[in-house]
Amino acid sequence: MALYVQKYGGSSLATPDQIRAVAERVLRTRRKGNNVVVVVSAMGDTTDHLVDLANQMHGLPQDREMDMLLATGEQVSVALLTMALHAIGAEAVGLTGPQAGIYTDPVHTKAKILQVIPSRIVENLRKGRIVVVAGFQGLTPEADIATLGRGGSDTTAVALATVLRADRCQFYKDVPGVFTANPRIVPAAQKLDEIAYDEMLELAGAGSEVLQSRAVEFAKKYGVTLEVLSCLGEEPGTLVKKEVNTMEGILIRGIAVDKKQAKLTVVHVPDRPGIAASVFRRLAEAHINVDMIVLNVSDDGHDNLSFTVPKAEVVRARKILDKVLVDTGATELRMNENIAMVSIVGIGMRSHSGVAFAMFDTLARHGINIELISTSEIKIAVVIEESRADEAARALHQAFGLSRPQKGKAKPKARRPVTTRRRKTP
Amino acid sequence: MALYVQKYGGSSLATPDQIRAVAERVLRTRRKGNNVVVVVSAMGDTTDHLVDLANQMHGLPQDREMDMLLATGEQVSVALLTMALHAIGAEAVGLTGPQAGIYTDPVHTKAKILQVIPSRIVENLRKGRIVVVAGFQGLTPEADIATLGRGGSDTTAVALATVLRADRCQFYKDVPGVFTANPRIVPAAQKLDEIAYDEMLELAGAGSEVLQSRAVEFAKKYGVTLEVLSCLGEEPGTLVKKEVNTMEGILIRGIAVDKKQAKLTVVHVPDRPGIAASVFRRLAEAHINVDMIVLNVSDDGHDNLSFTVPKAEVVRARKILDKVLVDTGATELRMNENIAMVSIVGIGMRSHSGVAFAMFDTLARHGINIELISTSEIKIAVVIEESRADEAARALHQAFGLSRPQKGKAKPKARRPVTTRRRKTP
Repeated sequence: MALYVQKYGGSSLATPDQIRAVAERVLRTRRKGNNVVVVVSAMGDTTDHLVDLANQMHGLPQDREMDMLLATGEQVSVALLTMALHAIGAEAVGLTGPQAGIYTDPVHTKAKILQVIPSRIVENLRKGRIVVVAGFQGLTPEADIATLGRGGSDTTAVALATVLRADRCQFYKDVPGVFTANPRIVPAAQKLDEIAYDEMLELAGAGSEVLQSRAVEFAKKYGVTLEVLSCLGEEPGTLVKKEVNTMEGILIRGIAVDKKQAKLTVVHVPDRPGIAASVFRRLAEAHINVDMIVLNVSDDGHDNLSFTVPKAEVVRARKILDKVLVDTGATELRMNENIAMVSIVGIGMRSHSGVAFAMFDTLARHGINIELISTSEIKIAVVIEESRADEAARALHQAFGLSRPQKGKAKPKARRPVTTRRRKTP
Repeated sequence: MALYVQKYGGSSLATPDQIRAVAERVLRTRRKGNNVVVVVSAMGDTTDHLVDLANQMHGLPQDREMDMLLATGEQVSVALLTMALHAIGAEAVGLTGPQAGIYTDPVHTKAKILQVIPSRIVENLRKGRIVVVAGFQGLTPEADIATLGRGGSDTTAVALATVLRADRCQFYKDVPGVFTANPRIVPAAQKLDEIAYDEMLELAGAGSEVLQSRAVEFAKKYGVTLEVLSCLGEEPGTLVKKEVNTMEGILIRGIAVDKKQAKLTVVHVPDRPGIAASVFRRLAEAHINVDMIVLNVSDDGHDNLSFTVPKAEVVRARKILDKVLVDTGATELRMNENIAMVSIVGIGMRSHSGVAFAMFDTLARHGINIELISTSEIKIAVVIEESRADEAARALHQAFGLSRPQKGKAKPKARRPVTTRRRKTP
């Protein structure tokens, strides 16, 4: 008897009809002889509505109370889905995060799961019941309700799949799987049959919103196979799983575009040890996520330090950096909000050279200027003008041969278009 | 330093503006040097909305899931009111029923409070904080969320006032207090300055919806002084308290009209021991509340058994009684939904005769026929035609001298009009 953890997001649970459809899908899985644990988000735009109410009460509501408020959204979904399951004859029980044994640290609104004690879940599974669990929430050591932050329901699902040793953790979405690129930007984008954890992580970090990074990290750490699939059809989706050798046959798995970043440059930073550290320490203390960091060392002992922060944090970041300017003697802070980050990701690039060149060459041939470059072992990211980002993604998608159907894993040759251009590398 | 428990109903918390107004009122009480525990209901028609959602999922949702669903309403109110308090500079903390230490039996949707362990409340009061608690809910021995049934927030407030030895338990309503009659029916109705627990209980049982019977019973048992007052002005309201001698000076405290009852009559019941018991046992097993019961014994060994049940339960009651008819040999079941129950209540009637006569006489003079009569030590209730109920209430209100302002307690003579008519009693 297999155990499936199925996670349904808010857009799959927005109406009573959709909740009924989810109930039927869950029961189908159960009737095939599987145990099922369902993790649910809040219905539709419930969370936004609650946040709006909170903001009407207080300009900056306390995190503890915010969590108490937001956690009700998932609790409503749990109760309604459990009722819908009962209505079609399923044995089912609903549990809040705390009831499901999910214990977190006390960092309200972005708590981390410390421990899962799934005794109530296990006991109910043993009785043959489908168990519906509220995602996104847990209990702090102070017996308060904490939420895991937006998208935290994904993390709940993976955490439960881990402790329950589930055979698969399925994420039902309004898309049929993970694509080589965002189909709204790249119409030729193809659904992937599989993707390695590390690739998924890099794509998530680079702006893909299919799965939360934390959830994928969790899955990688504990070897839980994830599946992203559509809540509409019955097609198999995309497996997110441990890297296997054949995966390297595909050079580039996908392309991500992130238009939510802004570029900041601290000009003329003195080239002294600890300067960069002091900049990023202060940003970190303000909980501002810094992504790409590039330091240009100049000959005169002064550097330019560029990095990206979320556009939403630009005002706060500027305030902090204005002080840094004074303290360090840097001359100027430049800011550009009209940029986008375009990334190509693939574990195949570890064993193939020339990928970076092929990327830069493709952009150059389109007359797209690169402002920043950053690379990891399996990702190359560039910052370019925002207005050229979609064009860049389409060009790269074509150049790296991603526009062909991704069926099977057997055509590695066809997936290495850039290696055929290696002659061009210097 | 006094301790006030203040309870705000859903209609006082329906909008962000109203929640802010409640926050200001609570803070005013705090700034006067009092400790304050606030008990809140769900915002406006939230509960109805949730019930509607539940009914779309399941014709008869399981009680456990219903409680999980409904409890979110109060939790939202707690979070929002606490935020509103923070926004105006108050130190405040919000607690769900379980967090506040409210433990109930496992009878979902109509749970009873078994125990209150208020350590978290006390600890927060000691820190000088206002404590906001979700009404209507508690934790079962199975660690599930249970609700106390509609109006259960009143019970939560009184239970907390009891264990915390509060100086007063205030109920903020959209009416300024308890009236001699429903002002919508009797325009001359007067606000009462005070009313005894027993009178309030009889009025609640007779259809007055100002306070829940269970809450008043609780208050009586533990001697908690209640106050019903308006959430709009600053006027004192009505004190619900222990009976004192001067209260007997007022013969009739108030009049209640209940149009939600239907009359059932089992005709020609054999006059054998145990027949009535079997009728009411079966109704009780089906959780149908029977109110007035009148048995007319006839000479031929057959009785007519009349009683009232809520109109909403008539169909279920008929089904059960149809079986009883067969089992007992009763000839017929008569039903009348066009009736109303009109009651007069006052501890003064314990020490004054002629009250019943005065009531019947007043109705007779208006040509209103009485179908059933039932009396307690401090209440006389009659069942009459529904279309005459409002007229009856107005006539009785006038006849018993309730239409004069109720200020002070010093005019017992003026409040005993019926005793002056005692000459009419046979």
